[in-house]
Formats: sequence, C-alpha cells, structure tokens
Amino acid sequence: MGGAGRQRRATLADVAGRAGVHPSLVSRVLRNDPSGFASSETRERIRTAAKELGYRANEAARGLRSSRTMALGLLLPGFSSPVYSAIAHGVEERADQRDYGLVIGTHAAGDPHEVITEMVMRGRVDALLVASGRIEDQALRQLVRRIPESLVLVNRQVRGVAASVVLRDSDAAAVAVRHLAELGHRRIGGVFGPRTLDTMVRRRHGFVEECTKAGVEPVVTEVDGRDHGAGFQGALRLLDAGEPPSAVVAATFPMAVGMLSAFHERGLAVPDRMSVVSIHDDGLADYLVPRLTTVMLPAAKLGAEAVDLALSLVDGGAPRRVVVPDAPRLIPRSSTARV
Amino acid sequence: MGGAGRQRRATLADVAGRAGVHPSLVSRVLRNDPSGFASSETRERIRTAAKELGYRANEAARGLRSSRTMALGLLLPGFSSPVYSAIAHGVEERADQRDYGLVIGTHAAGDPHEVITEMVMRGRVDALLVASGRIEDQALRQLVRRIPESLVLVNRQVRGVAASVVLRDSDAAAVAVRHLAELGHRRIGGVFGPRTLDTMVRRRHGFVEECTKAGVEPVVTEVDGRDHGAGFQGALRLLDAGEPPSAVVAATFPMAVGMLSAFHERGLAVPDRMSVVSIHDDGLADYLVPRLTTVMLPAAKLGAEAVDLALSLVDGGAPRRVVVPDAPRLIPRSSTARV
Repeated sequence: MGGAGRQRRATLADVAGRAGVHPSLVSRVLRNDPSGFASSETRERIRTAAKELGYRANEAARGLRSSRTMALGLLLPGFSSPVYSAIAHGVEERADQRDYGLVIGTHAAGDPHEVITEMVMRGRVDALLVASGRIEDQALRQLVRRIPESLVLVNRQVRGVAASVVLRDSDAAAVAVRHLAELGHRRIGGVFGPRTLDTMVRRRHGFVEECTKAGVEPVVTEVDGRDHGAGFQGALRLLDAGEPPSAVVAATFPMAVGMLSAFHERGLAVPDRMSVVSIHDDGLADYLVPRLTTVMLPAAKLGAEAVDLALSLVDGGAPRRVVVPDAPRLIPRSSTARV
Repeated sequence: MGGAGRQRRATLADVAGRAGVHPSLVSRVLRNDPSGFASSETRERIRTAAKELGYRANEAARGLRSSRTMALGLLLPGFSSPVYSAIAHGVEERADQRDYGLVIGTHAAGDPHEVITEMVMRGRVDALLVASGRIEDQALRQLVRRIPESLVLVNRQVRGVAASVVLRDSDAAAVAVRHLAELGHRRIGGVFGPRTLDTMVRRRHGFVEECTKAGVEPVVTEVDGRDHGAGFQGALRLLDAGEPPSAVVAATFPMAVGMLSAFHERGLAVPDRMSVVSIHDDGLADYLVPRLTTVMLPAAKLGAEAVDLALSLVDGGAPRRVVVPDAPRLIPRSSTARV
C-alpha cells in the first residue's frame, strides 16, 4: 500500500492562506462564532476556500475549545435483544441529525457501573444515555449525583434519577389483554420478567388492571429473565401450575418465541389450544410458526426522544420524565384465535 | 436536582499541587512518557496523589497531544442481524481491552459512504472498521486511497483494499454439505444471497465444491437479500423449480428461519421431508420449531481480530488479509434427519 494515492487533509492554515486571512478568523467564521467579526465578503471567501479545499474542522479540537466532545454515550447490555437494537438505531439516527457522534458501550467488558463511569469521567462524551436494566438502582443514583446534568435513562425510571424516557408499557399490556378478551378468553396467563425491572412492573400492572376491567381471570407467572429461555421456562411453569389458561401474554418478544417453542414441545397447538401475544413487535414475527400476534411499541422513537432530552440537559435544560406519547398498536397475526 | 451533591473533577493542577511537582511532569508520568524523567519516589507520589484525588486524564486532551483520538469507528448496516451483533460485541470487547473507545455508526442516516468519510475526516477516530456489505467495492477503493493506513474490512474482501478479516466461509458450507451427505441426501439445495457479496461467493463455492466431492447434486438458488424474507422467497423458488431436493443449506441464519416458515406454509414437514442447515449459529436456534441445525462460525472473534489489525495499522504496521483460523463446527439439532 504505502501513502501513494493519499491526499493530505487541508488544515486551518491552508484555508487561511487561500482566503488571505488569519487562521483564527477562519476558525471563528466556520464555527459561526459571533466574536469572529468579518465582512460578508470575507466570510464568503473563507467558506469558499474551505469548501474548495475540502476542509473539515477537527472535532476533537472543536470539542476542547467549547469543552464539548460533540459525542453522546449510549450504554446497552448488548446488541442481542431486538428492543435494544431498535433503541440504538433511534439514538444513532437522531444523534446524527443533531450533528453528534455516538459512542456505544456494552456490558461486554466487566462491571457495567465501571464502564459508564469511565465513559463520562474520561471526558469522552457530553451526556450518557443508559438503556440497561442490569445496573442497580442504587448505582444509578450514585452516578447521577456525580453527573446530574448528563444522565438520561432510556426505557427505565428510577427514583432519584430525574431524566428518563419510557414507553406506554402499561397500555401495551392492556391492548394485548383486550384483544384476547374480545376473542372470548376468560383466563389469561401473563409471563413477566423480574419486578426489579420497572418495564416489567408497568406491563404487569397494565395486564392485571385490564384483566380486572374485562372481567377476566389473570394468571401471573414471574421468571428470572426476559429472553427466549425465560419465556420457555415461564410457559412450562404456567402449564405445570394446574389448569392452564387458554391464552397468554408474553412480556417481551424473545419470551414469546421461547413460549411458542415450549407449547410445541408439550403438544399444545398454537393458536388452537393456546393463543399467544407478545409485547413489542419484531421483523421475525412474520416468519415464526405460527406468525406471532404482537403489540407494537415505538422503540426507535424512544432513542430519538432520549437524544433530545440529553442535548437539552447539555444546554442547561431541566431534567424531566418523558413518556413517548404514541399509543401501542395491536398487530394481529396467526398466534391468536377465538377460544 | 441542581449541582448539590456534585464533585468537581480533579485536574492535573490538583494532582501536581498535592504531589508538589510541576503539572507537566504529572502528565508525562501518568502517560508513561519516557521523557518524563522522575525518581521512583516522585513517580509513586504522583500516582498516589492522582489515585487519592480520583484524577483521570481527559481523553480528548490526550488525543490532541498525541494526535490520536484513542477511538475506533465501526460501520454497520444496522443492529438487526445476529452476525453484525456478534461482530459489534467482539469489536467492543477487544477495543475496551486495548483501552480504545468505540464509535459505532450505522447506515441509518443517508448514504453510507458519506457517513464513513465523515467519521474519519472529522478526526473522530484513528481507524475505521467497515462491516457492511452495502457499500460498493468502488466506493471502498476510493476511500482506502484517502485513508490507506486506517481502514479494515470486516467479514469482507475487496480487490484494492489490503486490510481485511474474514471467516472460513467456504469451509462452513462444506461442513453443512458433508453433514447432509452423511445423512444420505443425494440432491441438496443451496440458497445464497447475491454474488456481489464475497461472503456469499465463498459459501457458494464451498457448497458446490463439497457437493461435487461427495457425489451429490447441488441445486443452487440465488436471492436478492440475506434476511428472513430472502430465505422465504428462496425456499419457494426452490420448491417451484421442479423436483425439490430433500435437504437445503441456508447461507445465513435469518434465511434459514424464513425457509422454515416457507416449508411450513407449503406443508413440507422439517425434517421428515426436508432437512435444513444454517450457516452461522444463533441463540434463537434452540427455540425454533424445529430446533435448527447450524454451522457455528466465530463471528465475535472476527471483531476482535479486526481491532488488532486496525491498531497494528495505526502503529505503522502493514495492511494484511487475515482469516480467523477457527474451524467451522456443526451443531446438530432437530432440523436435519436421514433421507
């Protein structure tokens, strides 16, 4: 290889030379700094020179000057869950629209609390979005005391952390129950992850409340996780606990996939003998056997709203709790049927 | 909220004051800069002071000084594919081990070529890992001419781009064919994505070659994509093209999921009338109906190797083509059976 075909990047001095002005003026004009007084002709000349030379301000230098890194951090437990993928997608898109870079960290390497503290304390990011259920409430409260103006919780609410964005989880569960009640189901199972996760608390609350409203008997099962395996376990537990219900709401999409697998293993045909609805939709839903009925929640919007809230904090705005207003929407497919 | 409980971050000057030395010495000692001559007592005093004050070097400042950002860029088409998720996981983990930050970009916002050029040209990252099949070869060759010392292709090889890391794709397809041939299948279908993707070319080559070796008739079908829908379409095309084979190899995991769905829709029982093997494994495999036989390829290792190669380029090393040596491994489950 070697540097044969390589073009040297244009510097501030190159632009200044071409425009016939001092480099500091170039910098100020290109940043739209009001202290960079110059005639409109001079401004135009500088901009043209920068454009012709393909000059781009060095972000790291710009970061130091304004004491902003122009980057946001996003902490995720990983990329495997479809909801986290959708959140990451939404965050990335909005950060880009607002001209911010994004540093995504996962729990891959060791203690999550350590990872996030590092990201902020080493000055790599201006604000941190935490979209993880794995960090304990207490650890988050400690962290927010150290960086009160730059922490936003995504898909989570914790007492003592004032900036957060969540979805209408409770309403989503209610939509699922209403659909099943309308199909004539009178006993409905609900398989939820641990109550330490506030999304689970809200979904469970909406589930039980709507069952009560609809005059339906709720059969709640709590499992340890939220993935395929947790759903599989939850379904077996539901079947082994006595007379099984005729329909079930899964608290997450992967849990619903695990439940389909468990019902198949026990010879319980879906939807003939068991209807299944998942909270959250996914592209996979159309390719499962049977195709999975879901309740769609706007996970990507969650990411966008979180970016907006974080940047308002960076600009000195007050932290607040945001609920993405979009109503959860039923997507009926083949996993639900009349009782 | 407010700043009530907030601690001011310790500065270099704070550490210097506590240790009784000049700030520049603190900086050099903490960076292990050989020009920072100091007695071992002084070094120890500086390190203790830094530790007691919780001082952390500001990465942006360090970046400017050494003209390194200490960050890598990773360009992905998105987070939805399990292979991309695994690559991202591997990259993140290794970058962290090597004390590098990671900026993950996706094609979310507009033209991918524009996105990657921005990431490098604006000085946000020291090197760029491109794990995307969507950018055209020609665009990559143009880019590598501008940044020859800082571009690594992940899971892809392109003529004119010297630094890349790939898996043993051809061998993976051969492992799948061998498994099916051993089960007595004499006509084996292969559904592959477009030949513009070199992973697809290699898998297809390994498939056809191993079929020939095993005395099996290969039935190749090419589809436009690599996702669930592409697999679904490919399976239907295979069934409609005449006498269908008794077994099929899917070029990707999502394609295999789509194919299971298509075979179910056509009433073709898997594995009784059709065996299915996927190239690449995924946690979902155990929860599909039936459980999916796969060939495991180390996608996370791909990410780690790419980070190592990128950092060797940053240090002035020569670009090279790496093939992750791990042999593909069959994971037999319930979607394959004797003919």
